[in-house]
This record gives sequence, C-alpha cells and structure tokens, in this order.
Amino acid sequence: MVLERLKQVASHVTGQSPPPHPFDPLSEVEIEKAVAIIRKEHDGLFFNAITLWEPRKSEMMKWVADPDHTPRPHRIADVVAIGRGSKVYDGHVDLNEEKIVHWELTEGVQPLITMEDLQIVETIVRKDPKVIEQCGLIGIPPEDMHKVYCDPWTIGYDERFGSNIRLQQALMYFRPHVDDSQYSYPLDFCPIFNADTQEIIHIDVPKVRRPVNKAPPNNYHAAAIEAEGGFRTDIKPIEITQPEGVSFTMEGRIINWQNWRVHVGFNYREGIVLSNITFNDKGNVRPVFWRLSLAEMVVPYGNPEHPHHRKHAFDLGEYGGGYMTNSLSLGCDCKGAIYYMDAAFVNRAGAATTIKNAICIHEEDAGILFKHTDFRDDSVTVTRAHKLVISHIFTAANYEYCVYWIFHQDGTVQLEIKLTGILNTYAMNPGEDPQGWGTEVYPGVNAHNHQHLFCLRVDPNIDGPSNTVFEVDAARGPGEVGSAENKYGNAFYAKKKKLATQGSSMSDYNGATSRTWEMCNPNKINPYSHKPVSYKLVSREVPELLPKEGGLVWKRAGFARHAIHVTKYDDAQIHPAGRHVPQTSGVPSMGLPAWIAADPDASTDNTDVVLWHTFGITHFPSPEDFPVMPAEPMTLLLRPRNFFTRNPCLDVPPSYSSYPSGGKWDKTDRKSVSAKPKDCCSK
Amino acid sequence: MVLERLKQVASHVTGQSPPPHPFDPLSEVEIEKAVAIIRKEHDGLFFNAITLWEPRKSEMMKWVADPDHTPRPHRIADVVAIGRGSKVYDGHVDLNEEKIVHWELTEGVQPLITMEDLQIVETIVRKDPKVIEQCGLIGIPPEDMHKVYCDPWTIGYDERFGSNIRLQQALMYFRPHVDDSQYSYPLDFCPIFNADTQEIIHIDVPKVRRPVNKAPPNNYHAAAIEAEGGFRTDIKPIEITQPEGVSFTMEGRIINWQNWRVHVGFNYREGIVLSNITFNDKGNVRPVFWRLSLAEMVVPYGNPEHPHHRKHAFDLGEYGGGYMTNSLSLGCDCKGAIYYMDAAFVNRAGAATTIKNAICIHEEDAGILFKHTDFRDDSVTVTRAHKLVISHIFTAANYEYCVYWIFHQDGTVQLEIKLTGILNTYAMNPGEDPQGWGTEVYPGVNAHNHQHLFCLRVDPNIDGPSNTVFEVDAARGPGEVGSAENKYGNAFYAKKKKLATQGSSMSDYNGATSRTWEMCNPNKINPYSHKPVSYKLVSREVPELLPKEGGLVWKRAGFARHAIHVTKYDDAQIHPAGRHVPQTSGVPSMGLPAWIAADPDASTDNTDVVLWHTFGITHFPSPEDFPVMPAEPMTLLLRPRNFFTRNPCLDVPPSYSSYPSGGKWDKTDRKSVSAKPKDCCSK
Repeated sequence: MVLERLKQVASHVTGQSPPPHPFDPLSEVEIEKAVAIIRKEHDGLFFNAITLWEPRKSEMMKWVADPDHTPRPHRIADVVAIGRGSKVYDGHVDLNEEKIVHWELTEGVQPLITMEDLQIVETIVRKDPKVIEQCGLIGIPPEDMHKVYCDPWTIGYDERFGSNIRLQQALMYFRPHVDDSQYSYPLDFCPIFNADTQEIIHIDVPKVRRPVNKAPPNNYHAAAIEAEGGFRTDIKPIEITQPEGVSFTMEGRIINWQNWRVHVGFNYREGIVLSNITFNDKGNVRPVFWRLSLAEMVVPYGNPEHPHHRKHAFDLGEYGGGYMTNSLSLGCDCKGAIYYMDAAFVNRAGAATTIKNAICIHEEDAGILFKHTDFRDDSVTVTRAHKLVISHIFTAANYEYCVYWIFHQDGTVQLEIKLTGILNTYAMNPGEDPQGWGTEVYPGVNAHNHQHLFCLRVDPNIDGPSNTVFEVDAARGPGEVGSAENKYGNAFYAKKKKLATQGSSMSDYNGATSRTWEMCNPNKINPYSHKPVSYKLVSREVPELLPKEGGLVWKRAGFARHAIHVTKYDDAQIHPAGRHVPQTSGVPSMGLPAWIAADPDASTDNTDVVLWHTFGITHFPSPEDFPVMPAEPMTLLLRPRNFFTRNPCLDVPPSYSSYPSGGKWDKTDRKSVSAKPKDCCSK
Repeated sequence: MVLERLKQVASHVTGQSPPPHPFDPLSEVEIEKAVAIIRKEHDGLFFNAITLWEPRKSEMMKWVADPDHTPRPHRIADVVAIGRGSKVYDGHVDLNEEKIVHWELTEGVQPLITMEDLQIVETIVRKDPKVIEQCGLIGIPPEDMHKVYCDPWTIGYDERFGSNIRLQQALMYFRPHVDDSQYSYPLDFCPIFNADTQEIIHIDVPKVRRPVNKAPPNNYHAAAIEAEGGFRTDIKPIEITQPEGVSFTMEGRIINWQNWRVHVGFNYREGIVLSNITFNDKGNVRPVFWRLSLAEMVVPYGNPEHPHHRKHAFDLGEYGGGYMTNSLSLGCDCKGAIYYMDAAFVNRAGAATTIKNAICIHEEDAGILFKHTDFRDDSVTVTRAHKLVISHIFTAANYEYCVYWIFHQDGTVQLEIKLTGILNTYAMNPGEDPQGWGTEVYPGVNAHNHQHLFCLRVDPNIDGPSNTVFEVDAARGPGEVGSAENKYGNAFYAKKKKLATQGSSMSDYNGATSRTWEMCNPNKINPYSHKPVSYKLVSREVPELLPKEGGLVWKRAGFARHAIHVTKYDDAQIHPAGRHVPQTSGVPSMGLPAWIAADPDASTDNTDVVLWHTFGITHFPSPEDFPVMPAEPMTLLLRPRNFFTRNPCLDVPPSYSSYPSGGKWDKTDRKSVSAKPKDCCSK
C-alpha cells in the first residue's frame, strides 16, 4: 500500500499520470487503444460498447490486500461490436499485452441500442412513405412531417420478427411547434425499424383509429409558464455553502469520507458502480461491500392491447444507464461544493466520447444524527448529521431516473431513486374509456399503468467474503394468550430463515411482517450480542411483478419474479437479465433464472454470495403527473446490525451537549466546560 | 374575512391583542382564567390538563366560510382535574361566558401521567425501605441510593391492581456517576408507586436475580467522547442561510407558504395539530384536510416474562406528546431561518407554564422538484424544490420522537418521524440467553424487541367534507396468458374497494400489492381523468400489531389491530385509545373499536369521515443502537391524485430551462432569451 501510494505521488511529481486503479473505468486513451488493437485484426465493425472488463475477484482481492507485492491486474477491455449483416462480436482486449484475448461471434443476440442508434430512427420515420400515409390518415399532412417525432425503443420481443433482425419500435408523437411537448400529441400507430437496413419494415396500426390530438399544448418549459402568467415570486433563496470546502478527499477515484472508503466506477450499462467499500472502525478497516450497482431494470406497462405489451423497457440492459446519463453541466442539479467525474465511452465509429460531469459527489446536511434529553434536568446532547451523496441522472426517452448512493455516518448505505420526467403516453379518442389500463391525464392523452422495477446487485463482503443471507420476519411468539410461556400474548421475535442454496434462495416481500434480509458473516460474532456481524437490507417499496407467470415480461425479466435471489459468486454474473437483452424471447429466461437453474443445489451458505434485490413502484398515472412529473422518491437502506459494538458515530462533534452535573460542551473551544447551559439557537 | 382581518389590524394599532383564532391553543391567560372560574366552585383540585375544547366542526366550518357574518365560536377550556381520593373530574369552561358549562366526576379512569407526576417517583423510590432492600440484594449499598434512578411509567394495566388506584411502575437504573447513562445499569426489579398515597405499594421481583451491572460506563455525552480520544476534526461546515429571510408569512398561527395555508395548533396530548389545510389552486382556495394529528401511539415490548408485558407505553394518551415536548432552545435542532412557537400548559397547581420554542417552523431545500432532458438536443428544464417543515420533538423517558410535518410544493403532505434517544434496557446476567426476546447490546444490558406504532388521524376535506375512502391494490388483469384479452399477460390495474361502513372499514397492509388508500370526494370529478378528486395515503412502514389477538396490548390498543379504520365524523372522537388511557383494561376496548361497535352500519360513503392509520416500525435492537440510537427515519405521504388538472408546481422558477428552438430561461432577468444554452453550474 505504501509503495502504491508512493507511485501515485511520484507520478504526480513527474507529470506522468498515475496508473489507473484496476477498478477505474477505461479512459478515452484506453478505449481508443482497444479499438486500434481490434482494427488490426477486424475491419468493418461498428462499436456498441467498450468498457472495463473488471479484474477477476480472486485476483483483485489479493491485489487489494497487498498491492505492493501482488501483480497489478491487467487492464482489459470488454468489447461488443457489430459487423456486416448485424453480426455481433463479443471480445476482450488485454491493453497491457496489447492483444485480443477473446473474440467470438455470438449468434442470435442483439446488443443494446445506443443513443446513436436511437437518433437515426426519427429521420428515417419522417421520410418513410407508409409512415407519411399513416400520418395523413390521422390528420397530419405531408408538409408537417418535420413536426413528427418518435421515441425509438427496442422492440422488446415480437414473435413475428424474432431475435435475428435488429429492430426498434418507434413510439410516435407530434409537435405543433418545435418547443411543444410531444407527449401531449401521441400518435396511434407504431412503425418497426430495421437497424441493419435502416428502413421501416412494418407498421402496427390499431383497429380503432385515433386522430392526432387537437387539445392546446401542455408545456412546462419557462417560456410556456411565462406566457401563462409567469413564475411565482415569493420563494426566497436557501443558500447552501461550504466555506471550508468538502470533507472528503479523493485518491484517484477512491473517495474517503468520514470512516468510509469507496471506489467510484462507472460503466455504460449500470452507471455508477461502487467497489471495495470499507468502514474504518476505530482504526480497523473493515470490508462491508465488494460491489454495489443497479444491475437491471424493467418497466412493464399494463395495457394488454396490441402492441403495448412490447412496452417493457429494460432501461439498463437495453439502452444503458451510463449511456443515457445527463451531463450535469446542463442543468443545476446539486447545491454546495460539488465534485464531478466525467464518463468516457466508445461511439459507433470507434472514437472515444465523454459525458462531462456525469457523476456528482457532494455532501448534505442530514438533520439530527442523534439526540437525547434527560427529562429530569433537561441535560441534552444533540448531534447533526452530514451525508455523502454520489449520484447520476439518466434520461430514458420520456423518463428521468435520479440515482443517489448515500453514505451515512452511522454506517448506513442508502440508495435513493427519484423518478421524474414525462409519462409515456398514448392517443385516445374523445370519450374513449381507458378501461382501467391507463388514465386520461390531459384531453386525448392516455398514460398507461406501469411499474418501475429495479434490480440492485449487492456483492456483500461483511468482514470478508464468506457470507450468508437470512430472510427475517417479525413473528409472534409460540404460546397462546393465557399460556404460561406467553400469558399476555406479547411475545415476539425475529424469525430467521437461511437462504442456503441458490435454488431455495427466492424470497418475496412481506410488508405485514416487516420482512428484511440480513447479509451476515457467520464466522464473525459480535462480542456483545453474540450474533453474527451483518448488514440488513431494509426495503419497503417492493411490489410484485404484475405481468403474469408465463407471460412475456415474466419470461424476459426473470430477476423480477422475486424480491430476493441469492447466488454463489461468479465473475461472469453481472447482468441479471442477460448480457444482451434486446429481443430475448425469455425462452429460456436469461440471467438469474438460468444461473440458478444450472446449479440449484449450489450452496449460498457461508461462502462468497451475491444478493439480487428487485424493488420499485407501481404507477397509476394521474393528471398531476403531467406534463412533467414532480419527482417521486423511493429509497432503501443497508444498515449495520450487530456489525459494530456501539453506535459508530459518537465521535461526530455535537451541536450541543450538557450534563446532569451542570457542565456543557463548548462548541467553539471544542471542549467541555463547567458553565451552566444556556440557549444556543438563533431565533 | 375582510372585517376579520381589519379587526386584527385594528387591534395591532391599538396595542390590544387580536382575538385568538378559534383553533388557537389556550393562552397562559386563558388557562389561568379557566382555573380561576373552576376554583370559584371547586376546591382541593390538582390540574391534570387544560386545553382548547375545539369548536364543533359544523359551527367552525360556518365561521371559516364567513367569519364576518358568523358568530365567533366561544373559547372553551377542556379540563381534567384530580380531587381528593384520586377522584377524576372532566369539565368544560366557557371562557367567553366565564362559567363552567360541564362538570362531571368520571369513575374508574385514570388521566394521563404528567411530567410533574413522573418527577415525584424517583425521590420516593430512593427512600423506600423495600426498594433499598432490593438494591442491597443486587449489590447497591444503602449509601449509594442517590445513584439509583427510575423511569416512571404508567403501569399500563395490571389485573392485580385494577383501574381505581392511580399507579406508576418504576423502571429502575443505577448511575455510577451522575453523568453516566443509567441505561447501561438497569436493575432487575420493578416497584409499583401509588400516586395518591405517594408510596411504593408493591415490588415485582424476578425469580432469577441479576446483580447490578459491573461493565464500565457506556456514555455518549461530549466529556465521555473527549476522554476516549475526542471528536473527529474532518467535518467541514455546511452553512445553510436564508439571506432574504423566510418565504412564509404568519397571520397569528396561520401559516401561508407557497399555495398552502395551514393553522398550526398544539395540545398537551397530540402535540402539533394542523387544521383547515387548504391549497390555492390558481386562485381557487381548495380545502384538503380539516385536521391532521398524531392521535395515539403504542410501544409494545416483546418479552413475555413478567412484568415486561406491562411495557407498552401509549406515549400520547398516557403521557402526552405535548407535555413531553423539548424546548428547542436547549439544543440546536434546525438550520436556516427558524420561526418558533411556544406551548402553554397548566401545571398541577393550576398555574400556566410555557415550553419555549416548542414548535419549529422552517424551510429546507428539497432537491430536484422535476427535470426532463430531451435526448435529441439536450434541451432541459430542471427545477429545485423547497419544503416547509413544522416540527416538534418529544422525549418519552428513554426515547426521542422527532415529528416533522412537511408540506411540498407539488401538493404532497408528508409526515416524517425520526426515532432516536436510548433503548429501554433490562438487566441480564453474564452468559444469560435473551431467548430471542431481546439483544445484549452491551455486556449485561438486554434491549427488548419492541414496536413503535403510531396512529395518524386524518380528517379529510377533499374539496369539501363529503368524502369516501377506498383501499387500492395493484392487481393483475383478468385474462390468462394466451387469452384474447390478455395475450401476453401484462394487464394490470388499480383495484379499488370502497370502505363503505364503519364496520367494514378495517383494512390491513399489503406490501405485495403496493396497497394505498384513497380519500376521495365522489361529488367532484377531475375533468381530465374523469376520476373523483382524491388524496392518496402512501405508507410503507406498516407492520402488524405483534401482540396476539385477545392479549393485553391487543385489547388496550384496539386502534392498532388494523392499518386503517374509517369512522363517520364525530366531534367527540379524537382519541383512538380513549380519552383516559392509563390503566384501561381493554375490556371493553376503548376508542376506535367502541365507536365502531356502537354503530357498525354507519355509512362512511360520501359523508364526513375520519381515516385512522396505524403505522410504525418493529425494532430488534442491536449494539449499534447503543448507548444512543442513530436516528431511524420513517415516513408517509398524502399525495394528490386526480385532484389537480396538472402538475401544480410548474410555476416554481427553474434552475435552468432551455428549449429545442435554442432559447433559454435567464434566471437573473427572470425571462426567456434566445441565447444558446451554456453551463450554469459552478464546478
């Protein structure tokens, strides 16, 4: 570790960049180097993705433990490229050895749709004669085709077209004026785009036609609000400043904040990846999580009419949460002292591109950390909390997902997601009944019911990699009321069920029992409680997957069938709906169900495990969600239980502390004095 | 309304105080006036509570609608007094007419325990020979009795003593030094205190004795942390300032903030009471809630061993959330520009007393209010939110409850509660097995499992008092996979069940269906969605009451048997576990179960209803909760659904807004300009 740090310092002095941390995302230089190496052997390729092939865990754990005496893991690029005839190649390029170490033509799959892939479709659609014809049928003349827009989605899966042709479905809209929100003007038909031939191969047209909406625009941008009477003027500023700067330090992409130490990675798929998360427990650096990420999502829509069943976006696997990330230089998203990180990707042509300010790191005041007043004498200690927020925001066509990874001083890790942006909308005729599958949120605008289901991948490392997961329910004690053992009926306890094998690890949510899941290290026992050290997943927004068993979404989004799955760690298992998600049929179901089915008896007890947690919300739209949705938050916590021997944040300086004996803490002098307490609050 | 305001202005000019708003809590002067009126007719009384007898709803609704032409409701004091022989008197004093309008001797009840009642017990306990004897048996010599402390609780209910003698149970502790936390030194026996005779009438002694703990102190106050090595020095300040002051205005106790208008009341029992909550919807002042409060709580502990079943505090009904409220001048609890309100009570002797700074009102930045980026051109609008927080904190012996009523710009009302303070603890011997009913959080310290169950009372007024409550589940559509109506199995919808009568209004929580409850006005239909205007209760921390059916807690805390009860409005129904809670046997169960049983067929459909919601958490302690608990938050939302025709906060000025046409919003000039967007964030 010493040598490793010296290297960094030396490189700083000499002006050479330090070697990247093995978990660092590939730099622009590394991406272009990978492309150059591939181009020596293969030509005519478009690039779909080039990202870090993360070091194998066993190798990396050794290096982390002793970087000075362990070979540094090689920098390896994980490549997806598309050749002529939509041929898909998966490869690995060793950047240290400057050679391709793996190259494979992968049949029958479609890699995700990039932003570039998406951008092409609108132009094609506007020129397509059959689309122009359909527009005409619902009242859009050919000269208005420049006012026609589309949100291109992957096709999901459509059995008429299968998996071998690379397709997109174009959800169609109209804008009376270029600045109007098109989501008030959804069109009723859906062209299918062939990405290989760049043409419209089919149009799904509903039986009942719905002419383009005639309602006035419903806009939210500043000019529209000004025109309606302007902005309110009674909001006075709340200034948040950090005159002494931030409380964290960066070593490359490793952040040190309070007792936390975390490597902040990023990839095109998952967005933020947090690795090797440790907590310094009074000098003892204790591993907590090896890796945390949002690994997948699915957003099924609830309208059974054709072709709306195809609307079930896997936003991470089909588009990439990293690829869709906002540059936070375009819109002020945070307050206070902000540290930004950029994100580098490959483009279709093989050049590196960068999203500036893709990741935001900042601190916030977090209210009361703890407080207690002695009712006898009003002696009181109150301590305020700060929190560290590592965030990015991605735009998935109409929707915005704001992802906040939050570290607390008490050892808690929180994931908060805010949903904002715009509802996906469909056309409806005046007087039409949405039949319970959607809501008319504005005249002529049907916003369909939908779920947002996220899959959190937790690779626990609770005082080491040998962990076990328990399902924990609050349960009533065994004796009946009146019995000797439970006379008054008040006995209750935490009932624990070990998720001991892959095949028996599925667990659903139960709100009534306040169900949680504990990731524990059975080899490390808390000296006070005599219970294994653990982190508890507390997640309360856990709806069932509503699409039915055996149906399309159920088959394709196998990870979402249960709130929890546990697998034995495998380096290759990162993507719970599979590596290439678009146009999977769900037969067989890729990712989690396949891994578990391959070895249902694999032990997940006291070994290196991964916990997969599906959570989210079910959204029945209403007019107040339109024309742009007020942010809807959801959150989950990873909380230490029996991990520490004591509240780990007692050394955070208090706002105020006084004692029964009459002394008090002097905040300015940072020491206790015997003076009598007095008021400390500004009125 | 005009006349009413002129009166206020006039009284300001003349120096006379304006008349109180009919919902204002009684002032010190009014409290002492009530005492004086009572004393003319009754002597020898101790006062338990004097609080506003709130104006009858029908009378008050008329006055609110037209204060200039409607008689002002009289100021009436609601009095609980205790006479010789623990006789309890309930009365009403009309302060306008200066006379007692109701006076009654109430048999077989015990009014709540005040802070004064609590403070007496410790002194008595220390002098009691039998307590001294018990202390001796577990290792505390008589000369150390000044180091013996107790948290006096109501006895709950103990069938050996019944309801006629006013009792407290003393949970016993020891402090090696006056500044040591006694919760590390729980004693194993429990004296029973007779409040009438001021003596210890019984001591519950366990079969297995547990000598006083020998572990070193486990303290969290500043001097202790200093002695252990001091506070961390790496936390740099986050300054929150409001240089132009607050964005709200006060008219007496009515707060106007953004579109919200709310009367802020307070009483000894519920603490904060919010009344006549309206939202100004583009000039149309729309009623939302008539009254919101935390009406009751119960904290059952899960250890079935005698006498721990008696630990199930009704913190509001047995002690008073108002009475136990912290003065926020003793401990800096909020940041920014704070507006405080005091709270006046009567003391035992009949004098008025005031808790200074009992209520805190302030604003906070609330992150992103909404955002959307157009992926085609990166045009973006992002708007930040503020929120208004009305809060108080109360200390219930060991625990702290921080109650935050939060108003959002998007029409959402949020209730957030943070639990902090100290675990209730009991003694354990070295090597003793807590048998699943508790956790050894520190050597010799057993923290028992417990629940915190709160009862939120919502008196909805959704565009008027005629409301209906629906239970809403996310449900799968009817057709099987492959059927014509649901070919791909993706159909889902919001399944609604009307809670039409009191007797059929009970609803439990279902996390799997994302169950919510909608309070709607069936007479007011949203013009776009054609659904009734409503507010939806979104609450995700809703454990079942774990004490068993027929057991003591189940009988006494009838409100907690279900997540939801709905009742037809009745002025007299404020306290869901009854008006006088201590020493109720639960036979019959007071409050909600009694009201519903009295008229199970009473319609709750399209009439004036009250929704009672029990929510909370189940807490299995662990060492990190000790010696003081990091704040554990829980929250619920009341969200407008089909109430507005549009996102109601579009007129909040954006941080940034740019359009596809190239224009952007200029924040400084507060108008749109055609300049190209550029970066707006400080790095």
